[in-house]
Amino acid sequence: MARRPLHRQLFSELRASIAGGTLRGGARLPSTRDFAQQRGVSRKTAEEAYAQLEAEGYVERRVGSGTYVCELPLPAKRNARLEGRRTLSARGRTSGKSMACVEPLEIRAFAAGLPALDHFPIATWQRLVSSHARRLDTSALVYGDPAGDPALREAVAAYLGGARGVHCDASQIVIVSSSQEALHLLAHLLIDPGDAAWLEEPGYYGARAALTSAGARIVPVAVDDDGLDVAAGVALAPHARVAYVTPSNHYPLGASMSLDRRLELLAWARRSDAWIIEDDYDGEFRYDGRPLTAIQGLDPAGRVIYVGTFTKSLYPSLRLGYAVLPQDLVASFVAARTQVDGHPPPFLQRVTADFITHGHFDAHLKRMRALYRERRDVAVRLLSRHVELGPANAGFRVVAFTRGDDRDLAARGARAGLDLPTLSRLYIGKPRHGLVLGYMGLTPHALAQSVKALAKLV
Amino acid sequence: MARRPLHRQLFSELRASIAGGTLRGGARLPSTRDFAQQRGVSRKTAEEAYAQLEAEGYVERRVGSGTYVCELPLPAKRNARLEGRRTLSARGRTSGKSMACVEPLEIRAFAAGLPALDHFPIATWQRLVSSHARRLDTSALVYGDPAGDPALREAVAAYLGGARGVHCDASQIVIVSSSQEALHLLAHLLIDPGDAAWLEEPGYYGARAALTSAGARIVPVAVDDDGLDVAAGVALAPHARVAYVTPSNHYPLGASMSLDRRLELLAWARRSDAWIIEDDYDGEFRYDGRPLTAIQGLDPAGRVIYVGTFTKSLYPSLRLGYAVLPQDLVASFVAARTQVDGHPPPFLQRVTADFITHGHFDAHLKRMRALYRERRDVAVRLLSRHVELGPANAGFRVVAFTRGDDRDLAARGARAGLDLPTLSRLYIGKPRHGLVLGYMGLTPHALAQSVKALAKLV
Repeated sequence: MARRPLHRQLFSELRASIAGGTLRGGARLPSTRDFAQQRGVSRKTAEEAYAQLEAEGYVERRVGSGTYVCELPLPAKRNARLEGRRTLSARGRTSGKSMACVEPLEIRAFAAGLPALDHFPIATWQRLVSSHARRLDTSALVYGDPAGDPALREAVAAYLGGARGVHCDASQIVIVSSSQEALHLLAHLLIDPGDAAWLEEPGYYGARAALTSAGARIVPVAVDDDGLDVAAGVALAPHARVAYVTPSNHYPLGASMSLDRRLELLAWARRSDAWIIEDDYDGEFRYDGRPLTAIQGLDPAGRVIYVGTFTKSLYPSLRLGYAVLPQDLVASFVAARTQVDGHPPPFLQRVTADFITHGHFDAHLKRMRALYRERRDVAVRLLSRHVELGPANAGFRVVAFTRGDDRDLAARGARAGLDLPTLSRLYIGKPRHGLVLGYMGLTPHALAQSVKALAKLV
Repeated sequence: MARRPLHRQLFSELRASIAGGTLRGGARLPSTRDFAQQRGVSRKTAEEAYAQLEAEGYVERRVGSGTYVCELPLPAKRNARLEGRRTLSARGRTSGKSMACVEPLEIRAFAAGLPALDHFPIATWQRLVSSHARRLDTSALVYGDPAGDPALREAVAAYLGGARGVHCDASQIVIVSSSQEALHLLAHLLIDPGDAAWLEEPGYYGARAALTSAGARIVPVAVDDDGLDVAAGVALAPHARVAYVTPSNHYPLGASMSLDRRLELLAWARRSDAWIIEDDYDGEFRYDGRPLTAIQGLDPAGRVIYVGTFTKSLYPSLRLGYAVLPQDLVASFVAARTQVDGHPPPFLQRVTADFITHGHFDAHLKRMRALYRERRDVAVRLLSRHVELGPANAGFRVVAFTRGDDRDLAARGARAGLDLPTLSRLYIGKPRHGLVLGYMGLTPHALAQSVKALAKLV
């Protein structure tokens, strides 16, 4: 970067002296000639610094008399300490604590966030990025479509129709930065402060943060082996505005929601004019049985909003996900997103669209499914010798139930270099204790080492 | 994209028949051999479709007897019509209407959104993008820092210190997708529902949308030639939590806030433990007088949050802006942003950091300042023959005051192919009428044509 011009430095210095009270109101500054000589700068530089001070109202220049510091209502005492009550909103105070959605910056046992990036087809991707870089021209610099790049929306619609049983066309797809952004937007779009919202208990912290930020009264609804207990939800809050569910692979316990429950949930939503947010965050990766298709595909009444992400299926720093909306919600959702982040950056959307339409995405998913299945097998085999495990038919993690308080275990894990996300923090009511163990980024060798370290702790 | 596999197509079709009631509970499906023959597919394909139906609970396969549709509690009538009350939140209903921040997708007279992109140094930029594309490796795929790329934060801190008199170091900079995202996050971080917030009257619709979304009670505060009338704000709402200001170049009227007013505002904020959001959305572009430095630089008490953007100084589809926060707000702001969009995509942040540190940014700003000054001169000269203009010492637009209702004029403009953003929509109380005319993207020739068309309407 070009060096900061000398006259700006001098201006800032003089301004600081005035604002700080070193140069008081009425004080006379040296002439620009004297000042230039004192500082070893050109007269022009000194003149520019003085002119800026005058333009901003710090000094007054009287012809034939000199330059005087103005009388300014400056704070009596100047120090660089943050002062007074530093009041955040209730949301702000909460978000700074437990509800942040901070993800790991490197692959660590047993944090769940990072896919096996060393298996990403980086050469293919790089070739596509370079090709788009070569074709960049000024037409690519204008604002993008706030709903997302049209080619990517088409590609996502085709993928979701084929692979996930989602019934939609491209006009219902909105590209977002992540499923988290979709949840944030949906919560604000659908929830008025005080409205009830069903959240699976235990449930995903990102959904909880989004609903809380919108002012929802969160109603934790029990989950069993068939997924969310719809009858329990109806008993607790029949008029909830929203139900948030992870039906393919419940986060974090791993149940798959049964068809009966899915239909029961849909029937309730139709009866109560409620919305269902279906978070299919890892629906691409099922190892046992076939991938269950989406609730969205069962719903002709337009009560389901389907949310997905490329964070795990491609890579996290891509920052692309998608929401599939009933036609009549699209315009409002897009308008709300213009108020939050304008629109998604188009450049890597176009690369992603090419990656999908050229068939690389399907091939990549197939390879990764095999890789993660193998890792799942190893993780379950090794872990089950030491802990009681929940189901692990899909996704990237498995819950290990613990007898004592999981926070003690996590603290001991941290000292041993292990990241052990607790199960109890995902409950609103009385928690079960356990560890939510991610394995997707860990090679069989690393898994073996990490399980050994974990075994010593339990 | 790979074609959708045949067995998935068949599955979807059968599922639709079951869900739609064409195949009723108890109905017997043909054997897979018959079905394969009917459809001209392999037995294996038919088998896979049936197996998926069974896995999802639509059919039951009885050994030696056949495949039967399950009795399911399906909705009685199936149609693809959206049904019931489609209830959005109050926010959602509003955002779908006037408050969307939708920007023009092409350069049009007199929409203000798009810079003169044909003067962007596209070759230099393309070279940097290509160079980063070549260096892409898997280490770039992990989650990025939610506060932004460290190199870009350093570059922004250095630029703002030198050019805008902002006192900060890189740790106080958070990279966002746009100033709009910063406003959205700040509103949610600082405002509890019902809290008062000062907004300039008339004022920026994006700030209004952000504050409204957070539940603020918006207090419109008059603006005169010295900027926001602080005394008026104190009289209306002394205990407001936030004041939103555009002190370099008031949006949309173009006043520059005087030093006295700046100090008065700071004194109020310190006295009332309030926050000042300083939106310096076009502070880079001042044509008359020197660019005024930021309020943030006058504030040792940490009451000011400074917001800026690369949308106008580089290009809109880049999706990069920045907030400069007092040290004690950084962690909460970053935590809140992880709940909204996780983190900004790193790839183009790195390109932008290089662009700045290699000196291209300063050179570009210098060229564009000269270009926009020339366009400003032409616009003011031509427009002032027909309409009464407000000040145009900076930025990209000028207000033309009108006698009649500006909405009528805008409607007539639309029919004549002119985009005439109204002044009245930027008021909460009794409005003045006028047009907010953008000229930045228009060549002198296009300006002359457009002013001619406008002259016929006024």
